[in-house]
Amino acid sequence: MPGGEATAYGYFGPVGTFTHQALLTLDPPAPADPVPYATVGQALQAVRDGEVAAALVPIENSVEGGVTATLDNLAYGDPLVITGEVLLPVQFGLYARPGTSLADVRLVTTHPHAEAQCRRWLADHLPEAEVVVGGSTAAAAAEVAHEGSRFDAAICAAVAGDLYGLEALASGIADNPDAVTRFVLVSRPVPVGQPTGADKTTLVLFMRENHPGALLEILEQFASRGVDLCRIESRPTRRTLGDYCFSIDAEGHVGDARLAEAMMGLYRTCAEVVFLGSYPRADHLAPDVRPGTANDDYAAASSWLERLRG
Amino acid sequence: MPGGEATAYGYFGPVGTFTHQALLTLDPPAPADPVPYATVGQALQAVRDGEVAAALVPIENSVEGGVTATLDNLAYGDPLVITGEVLLPVQFGLYARPGTSLADVRLVTTHPHAEAQCRRWLADHLPEAEVVVGGSTAAAAAEVAHEGSRFDAAICAAVAGDLYGLEALASGIADNPDAVTRFVLVSRPVPVGQPTGADKTTLVLFMRENHPGALLEILEQFASRGVDLCRIESRPTRRTLGDYCFSIDAEGHVGDARLAEAMMGLYRTCAEVVFLGSYPRADHLAPDVRPGTANDDYAAASSWLERLRG
Amino acid sequence: MPGGEATAYGYFGPVGTFTHQALLTLDPPAPADPVPYATVGQALQAVRDGEVAAALVPIENSVEGGVTATLDNLAYGDPLVITGEVLLPVQFGLYARPGTSLADVRLVTTHPHAEAQCRRWLADHLPEAEVVVGGSTAAAAAEVAHEGSRFDAAICAAVAGDLYGLEALASGIADNPDAVTRFVLVSRPVPVGQPTGADKTTLVLFMRENHPGALLEILEQFASRGVDLCRIESRPTRRTLGDYCFSIDAEGHVGDARLAEAMMGLYRTCAEVVFLGSYPRADHLAPDVRPGTANDDYAAASSWLERLRG
Amino acid sequence: MPGGEATAYGYFGPVGTFTHQALLTLDPPAPADPVPYATVGQALQAVRDGEVAAALVPIENSVEGGVTATLDNLAYGDPLVITGEVLLPVQFGLYARPGTSLADVRLVTTHPHAEAQCRRWLADHLPEAEVVVGGSTAAAAAEVAHEGSRFDAAICAAVAGDLYGLEALASGIADNPDAVTRFVLVSRPVPVGQPTGADKTTLVLFMRENHPGALLEILEQFASRGVDLCRIESRPTRRTLGDYCFSIDAEGHVGDARLAEAMMGLYRTCAEVVFLGSYPRADHLAPDVRPGTANDDYAAASSWLERLRG
Repeated sequence: MPGGEATAYGYFGPVGTFTHQALLTLDPPAPADPVPYATVGQALQAVRDGEVAAALVPIENSVEGGVTATLDNLAYGDPLVITGEVLLPVQFGLYARPGTSLADVRLVTTHPHAEAQCRRWLADHLPEAEVVVGGSTAAAAAEVAHEGSRFDAAICAAVAGDLYGLEALASGIADNPDAVTRFVLVSRPVPVGQPTGADKTTLVLFMRENHPGALLEILEQFASRGVDLCRIESRPTRRTLGDYCFSIDAEGHVGDARLAEAMMGLYRTCAEVVFLGSYPRADHLAPDVRPGTANDDYAAASSWLERLRG
Repeated sequence: MPGGEATAYGYFGPVGTFTHQALLTLDPPAPADPVPYATVGQALQAVRDGEVAAALVPIENSVEGGVTATLDNLAYGDPLVITGEVLLPVQFGLYARPGTSLADVRLVTTHPHAEAQCRRWLADHLPEAEVVVGGSTAAAAAEVAHEGSRFDAAICAAVAGDLYGLEALASGIADNPDAVTRFVLVSRPVPVGQPTGADKTTLVLFMRENHPGALLEILEQFASRGVDLCRIESRPTRRTLGDYCFSIDAEGHVGDARLAEAMMGLYRTCAEVVFLGSYPRADHLAPDVRPGTANDDYAAASSWLERLRG
Repeated sequence: MPGGEATAYGYFGPVGTFTHQALLTLDPPAPADPVPYATVGQALQAVRDGEVAAALVPIENSVEGGVTATLDNLAYGDPLVITGEVLLPVQFGLYARPGTSLADVRLVTTHPHAEAQCRRWLADHLPEAEVVVGGSTAAAAAEVAHEGSRFDAAICAAVAGDLYGLEALASGIADNPDAVTRFVLVSRPVPVGQPTGADKTTLVLFMRENHPGALLEILEQFASRGVDLCRIESRPTRRTLGDYCFSIDAEGHVGDARLAEAMMGLYRTCAEVVFLGSYPRADHLAPDVRPGTANDDYAAASSWLERLRG
Repeated sequence: MPGGEATAYGYFGPVGTFTHQALLTLDPPAPADPVPYATVGQALQAVRDGEVAAALVPIENSVEGGVTATLDNLAYGDPLVITGEVLLPVQFGLYARPGTSLADVRLVTTHPHAEAQCRRWLADHLPEAEVVVGGSTAAAAAEVAHEGSRFDAAICAAVAGDLYGLEALASGIADNPDAVTRFVLVSRPVPVGQPTGADKTTLVLFMRENHPGALLEILEQFASRGVDLCRIESRPTRRTLGDYCFSIDAEGHVGDARLAEAMMGLYRTCAEVVFLGSYPRADHLAPDVRPGTANDDYAAASSWLERLRG
């Protein structure tokens, strides 16, 4: 890093990916000259290496579920934290080099998640076509744009189709027109931001023993403090089949007393708790704070106890 | 209190009650000249009024259950705290004025708990006799000792029979020979003692609403922190039928982090938590401290959280 | 029982007790010529012996709590079942032989529950008087009515005062004017009645082991099936201190699928479940049937499972 | 289907996939002439269409987690059931056309799960190479075997490398040498087989409302009946972000009373329960049957209740 600390952001690219689109909606805006990386892993490694100040990567899609490359890299790699999130509706079209007609399409390329989200349309409209999955939807568009490409068409965003000079053979081809993808902005560990009143906290929890009631115990640590979860996903720990860890988004901020108490409870009972950050929710939804679980309630209880202890 | 602070102890008397016997086993020993009171209520009021420094009263019997006069007085009266407990095996005999034979016994007097504990013996040996219940077993012995008493015999402890000059017509007459009564030493609010590693904490819990799951929620506040209970008793709140509070003995000391967290949880969710003291257990049984619930575990979790909050 | 099966009802007497008053409100009415018994135990034994067809006894008071003589007799004695309940507001007065004035009263007699409920009034109005507790409020009135009685006054119901020719020195003397006592009609085991839609079921539950989480497990058997409890009371099992059983009233009828499943769950996990009957609630309150817990829901689930098992 | 019901099995092919290897280990053996399909979706559709009697597809990998194509197809497609499972250790090698050396490898192809499992090896040994993911490891080997293929090497099983005439450039290249994949044998709905004493049941559960405690309630339905889970995975319901269903493997057989009761509880409280079959466990592990949860315990409880109901 000659010349000082990196300030640019990396993202899961190339130019034209949904992640790239999401990057353009960041508030406050991303610094100039964002850096595309071909895989999530490379983008996150660039953050660790200090090549970029932060990186935006997809973490979850409303149709396909968790992005395992992101989940596992954050869970198992060197420490990183999430400092923000973006939600983006995802819309797919079928794009080809000018002059190609739908009837010509034999070989399609796209990202696995895009393939999964357009399966019904493909079965209905291109039952004979083969689909080869690649690194990203924008990379697929770029590949198709090559003059000598063996691929006839790409499934990608309109932005990517336009960018690489392709023409739309069909648009709005996702089986579920309301699909949304969630992206997270990731940086090296930094002091956690102030609570905004509508925050989310991401944790990865590893059990001491993988006994059957372990997940129930984890959920009770949250429930008994009135903390709701917005996402829970089991991931294999890569040891033996049936050995899982849990990736969780909890409502609230580590600065909230109820979540802090739940997290300390998890810390005491889990083999390991990976804290991946407290950050403002993209949907600005404030949590449902149950009676007796506000910060003031915790403070009053603490004062009472101190008086009892004399 | 002319002449300074009272130092003597009161007890549920008169001389010769089981409470009196229990008082003699206190460790450290009770100050000289203990003061008998005819009812539990009078003994506790004397503590509140500063007539005595503390009072010993029965709270629970292994056959008859809770002593409601004690439970309710502690729960509803002006604040008092328990600073110690005593366990005493209780053995009953039938005592009469010299010259009385078992065949002469028509009218027996004793305390209601004693009557309840000797019912089978009475049915077998004195099926025709009537039993009138009075204030205490020792008072019953004293009553029988009066020359002109209409009572022929008293059910009481050997100590009381001897003390009042009676003779034993039968001994070991309790239906359950292993009955034990538990007594508590009560004083005006004082700074809580140091944890001994084998302590008990007494609480009375009032619900915000008397909804059906309320007791379940209370128990979960303890269970989720690994705190075991040694006694739980519902008591009517004296408002409407079906409206209860719960008198509870929990293992551990208010100085133990896991119990402190449970108590703060109760404070936040209950309408009222009455703290009746943390004190050494008479049986010296140390609690089962589950993994992750020791004071060190709490301290480590707290440090971890402070680091996260940066 | 010469001449056939007993049809009369017994009750906790004598004439003039609150139980007697409650008996007069039974619907359908009690058969003619009810039989008073001096103690709860004698009334219940008369049922077992076939002397009476059923007996009415007090089980719970909104101020004093459970009537332990009744609870323990039903839990530990030969099988009996509850077939109905009555609620009765209880009002106390101070009654004396004609010619006695309040200033003359030195020695008062009554039932222990009545004494407990009028303590404040006694402290305020008769601070010097002694109170001797006896078998029932009506027996106390009868005792005072004796010309040569050493007692100056009885605390009892107006009905009892009138019946025994006494005059009221004071009325409405209970510390809590809204106290209610609940009575149960008990018979030898009979086929359980039809559900009315507003029923109650009484059970006594003994743990396999007295481990700390045992009560939590019991409560979860009910909660997980959406069954609410209206009463729960711990009672010592008469073995060692800290060894309890639980006397419980659950909402609903053994004919309700959700309660039946909860009861079978308890049967499988408890050392013993004593079924004391399903009977109409005196307050006619229908239970809150949560979604998925009605009999139809259970029937639909059962049909579904049968189809799966094919 | 000329000539009658299909008897052959389909599988996720082509020849040489891990699924194909797993198929060869089936006990009892698969019928002759298994039919390869290029995708999981095609294999399962062939079962629905009656082209094959059953199909073997991967469902879970100890490193990469659930196979979402399989999970979602079973959850959302027309009804199918699992009748058996196979576990297979997965070992990867790098295979190329004869004459290729490691230094020549620029472009590698394989299945996405294989790419994910060999990432570290690739980074260490082929940092410059690109990886294009395709439909299966065997298809990748077949692709590389084409004389004019633009791919230099495939990551696949030794079986596939041999089958397609490739040579190993490296073997044992998985980052985790102990990775295991689990496959399920799927057929159209058939009567469920007899319990073997070591069975597994697969369910998909949709919530009525996606409230935060919904997962806790599901887990309690199992836990309260002593049923352990061996796998739980959240999957988006494809409606909105944060709306999940849960794919679950529970220990036991629908013929086991405890699991049957849990399933009926889920049926009553969930919006939908998809039953995907009860079948013998590949590891032959018998469940831990807790006291009171065996079939005999359920039968005894049911008899008791019938007696109470008279």
